[in-house]
Amino acid sequence: MGKMRVASAELRRKVVPADAAAALIPAGANVGMSGFTGAGYPKAVPLALARRISEATAAGTPFRVSVWTGASTAPELDGALAEADGIELRLPYQSDPVSRRKINAGLMEYIDVHLSHVAQLVWEGFLGHLDVALVEVSGITEDGRLVPSSSVGNNKTWIDQAERVIVEVNSWQSTELEGLHDIYYGTALPPHRVPIPLARPGDRIGTPYLVCPPEKIAAVVETDRPDRNSPFTEPDDASRRIAGHLLEFLEHEVARGRLPANLLPLQSGVGNVANAVLNGLGAGPFENLTAYTEVIQDGMLGLLRSGTLSVASATAFSLSPVAAEEINANAAAYRDRIVLRPQEISNHPEVVRRLGVLAMNGIIEADLYGNINSTHLMGSQIQNGIGGSGDFARNAYISFFLTPSTAKAGAISSIVPMVSHVDHTEHDVHVLVTEQGLADLRGLAPRRRARQIIDRCAHPDYRPLLEDYHQRALAESPGKHTPHLIGEALGWHERYLATGSMRA
Amino acid sequence: MGKMRVASAELRRKVVPADAAAALIPAGANVGMSGFTGAGYPKAVPLALARRISEATAAGTPFRVSVWTGASTAPELDGALAEADGIELRLPYQSDPVSRRKINAGLMEYIDVHLSHVAQLVWEGFLGHLDVALVEVSGITEDGRLVPSSSVGNNKTWIDQAERVIVEVNSWQSTELEGLHDIYYGTALPPHRVPIPLARPGDRIGTPYLVCPPEKIAAVVETDRPDRNSPFTEPDDASRRIAGHLLEFLEHEVARGRLPANLLPLQSGVGNVANAVLNGLGAGPFENLTAYTEVIQDGMLGLLRSGTLSVASATAFSLSPVAAEEINANAAAYRDRIVLRPQEISNHPEVVRRLGVLAMNGIIEADLYGNINSTHLMGSQIQNGIGGSGDFARNAYISFFLTPSTAKAGAISSIVPMVSHVDHTEHDVHVLVTEQGLADLRGLAPRRRARQIIDRCAHPDYRPLLEDYHQRALAESPGKHTPHLIGEALGWHERYLATGSMRA
Repeated sequence: MGKMRVASAELRRKVVPADAAAALIPAGANVGMSGFTGAGYPKAVPLALARRISEATAAGTPFRVSVWTGASTAPELDGALAEADGIELRLPYQSDPVSRRKINAGLMEYIDVHLSHVAQLVWEGFLGHLDVALVEVSGITEDGRLVPSSSVGNNKTWIDQAERVIVEVNSWQSTELEGLHDIYYGTALPPHRVPIPLARPGDRIGTPYLVCPPEKIAAVVETDRPDRNSPFTEPDDASRRIAGHLLEFLEHEVARGRLPANLLPLQSGVGNVANAVLNGLGAGPFENLTAYTEVIQDGMLGLLRSGTLSVASATAFSLSPVAAEEINANAAAYRDRIVLRPQEISNHPEVVRRLGVLAMNGIIEADLYGNINSTHLMGSQIQNGIGGSGDFARNAYISFFLTPSTAKAGAISSIVPMVSHVDHTEHDVHVLVTEQGLADLRGLAPRRRARQIIDRCAHPDYRPLLEDYHQRALAESPGKHTPHLIGEALGWHERYLATGSMRA
Repeated sequence: MGKMRVASAELRRKVVPADAAAALIPAGANVGMSGFTGAGYPKAVPLALARRISEATAAGTPFRVSVWTGASTAPELDGALAEADGIELRLPYQSDPVSRRKINAGLMEYIDVHLSHVAQLVWEGFLGHLDVALVEVSGITEDGRLVPSSSVGNNKTWIDQAERVIVEVNSWQSTELEGLHDIYYGTALPPHRVPIPLARPGDRIGTPYLVCPPEKIAAVVETDRPDRNSPFTEPDDASRRIAGHLLEFLEHEVARGRLPANLLPLQSGVGNVANAVLNGLGAGPFENLTAYTEVIQDGMLGLLRSGTLSVASATAFSLSPVAAEEINANAAAYRDRIVLRPQEISNHPEVVRRLGVLAMNGIIEADLYGNINSTHLMGSQIQNGIGGSGDFARNAYISFFLTPSTAKAGAISSIVPMVSHVDHTEHDVHVLVTEQGLADLRGLAPRRRARQIIDRCAHPDYRPLLEDYHQRALAESPGKHTPHLIGEALGWHERYLATGSMRA
């Protein structure tokens, strides 16, 4: 590295072990932590806090804190604290198996918030007082500015709003990340807000550093642990078919003159389907693409490397170990073409709408009329959360929702008569894609949407069941605008809960 | 009036009777008509078109057109065309009883669209070709510019996008409306969009005129009929109690330092509850208020008159006959404090978010977890549509949803275990108010929301039933994040359809 990570002499005097920093977090505190999709979360203090909580519990005085983050983190944060029963309330997004189990058992409270809304909700004071900010950075400059690490998330807001700040300086992160970030300090509470001056995905409108008065920093902890970095898995057949339908559609839209030849800025979630789409874009006819999205995953990095993607804006990396090594070795080479921003800007409705983002997000289930459930299994069990899908889909130029047509080896149909929870309403859903095909719902009244979705997206095993429901609803529904048999609209979910399968 | 309404000599030569103009609309055409909440809709040509359709139908060659508007219109437009079975497809909003009946009978197609989205959907080409624009104005200047009338709606987009334009010049509208409107011509399709330079509700960022090349104008029709103008009704007791809870909350938020003393820009729907809220604001402690909303109804006008409201921005008037007379007699006096804009700007997510609007909208039903149904009765019958409620609520500083706790003389509870259709998801709902009380859902996980909604908003007749459902769901739901008994979640609606009442 050849560079001192904590270059500020004043802040070097605040370096302490993780246990000492964890002791600064009082019982009942609201703690704003860094971390977004397994990148840039604090790696030592949460573990020390979990130990402290476990010891307190063993001694008969359990305590809990509320944990606010950017999005999902990792076992060292969510997993350890949930395991210790140390989390009172969690927001705005998680994907941790231990947390999920505790939430669904009613043992942990969870608020599932649009990722773009968190910063303003906290600033407005609607979520209560923020006691502590716990933020990972990749370094501290001589004059005390903080160089962000592999995610930005809500760090600016946590540092601004918290009473005291704990900084983890992670030497695993590349020193060459310095200059890659863009922290916009121009937001305000109304009536003092002004336009956000961002008109292209790569625009830089802020400073590369997080700013914090040194006297507010209560402790600095040094770490050297890697980000979570799940291994990359090759797209499966269903994902490749979903990607194929989507790419054919995009080519068609370009041919019709409804999209520019280099498309519009891409937003893509993570996972198998997203990887397949990004792979497909790399192999396809498109050039000079841009991305305005939440996370830069392996597929995006590949497109940047090949030059298919000219620039990518996000709030975090979400990389496999191999790709993380590549970034750590070559951050300087990517610095001109990658911008990491606060999530209030990466996901801001104003900017998403202005840029005309093509939003591509996975789902749990869709119904005949195009309503989307992104969060709940069988209406009551939270899976992960809405994340940024609403931020992007609601204001997208075209909103795509992607899913295999079945789950659990065919026991669950992703297309149901009525979804058991709604995260994206019929008003916000443009295109639905499964491995079976693509339904373009733009400009279609509800009954026509149902026709498209049954014919093009449903799995053949469930198509006759959907058709049967639809035909009987057309005949018997009291309203024919959105025909439903209200007594059996959720019958497929009921059947699954009773028998383990949605099949009749 | 003392002023020639069609001052352009070139366009005076295009004046024709309504029947001749209606003959320019071909069968199967997509027609973009003016009109928003019963204001500024064309008053002669739709009636002539309906006659032509009826005659054709009687002669054995029926035809239909698709009707796109700003929002709801009046019997002379929606009523007459629906009665003649002349509408193939209707968007983006309607509240006409004849249309509603035909839509729910499956005889007319209807797409229920966010009002801010319509202009871009058309411009993007996602809804097909716009054949004819049919737009009411209050006058035409000597050089051919069009002076809008009592609504702006989507008129700019219709005129820009249509192949030919028919103009109705209505001499009932005040000539002094000239200068009151602000038509922003700075929108673009991505990737060419730039920030909308509007930072305060009263900012003027465009021109007072609609611009149309004269050669595109195929016909000019002169009319003199008043807008629909439903009479004003005094708020009932339930509405006054809803308003009381809301005003108490606002005072509390100011006292807590979470709202400025003059609040933030108000958005309010129409109807009895909205009138009660506006009356209450007039009687309350607030001064120097502003409005950034869709419509200016009697209550807003009253607040402007008394000086409580310093400026109001909207896209249309929606006035009683008495208030319409007042505007017609005194438009010049209001011109500095009222701005009517295109609905893509009045409802624009970018601007709504920036200004920090306080969004207040009525609903059909809410559920225990704060999901809102604004559009469908018993899951299948459309009532009116989502209108602008999503535009405002989704990006509001605080989103309020207001409803009496029961409907149909108590046979329907507005608070149900699970809503039968979702227009606003749990992620977007801040505050729910009924005459029983107010539930502040900000920062609450789902089970806590249920507790608040049952205790504070439900009608006492239904509270024990809700409590029973909630307790059994807490005990038996497979997921305890959003506890539901999926087999009976829609049971209240089923019971109503079977028995005419949601009571057990």
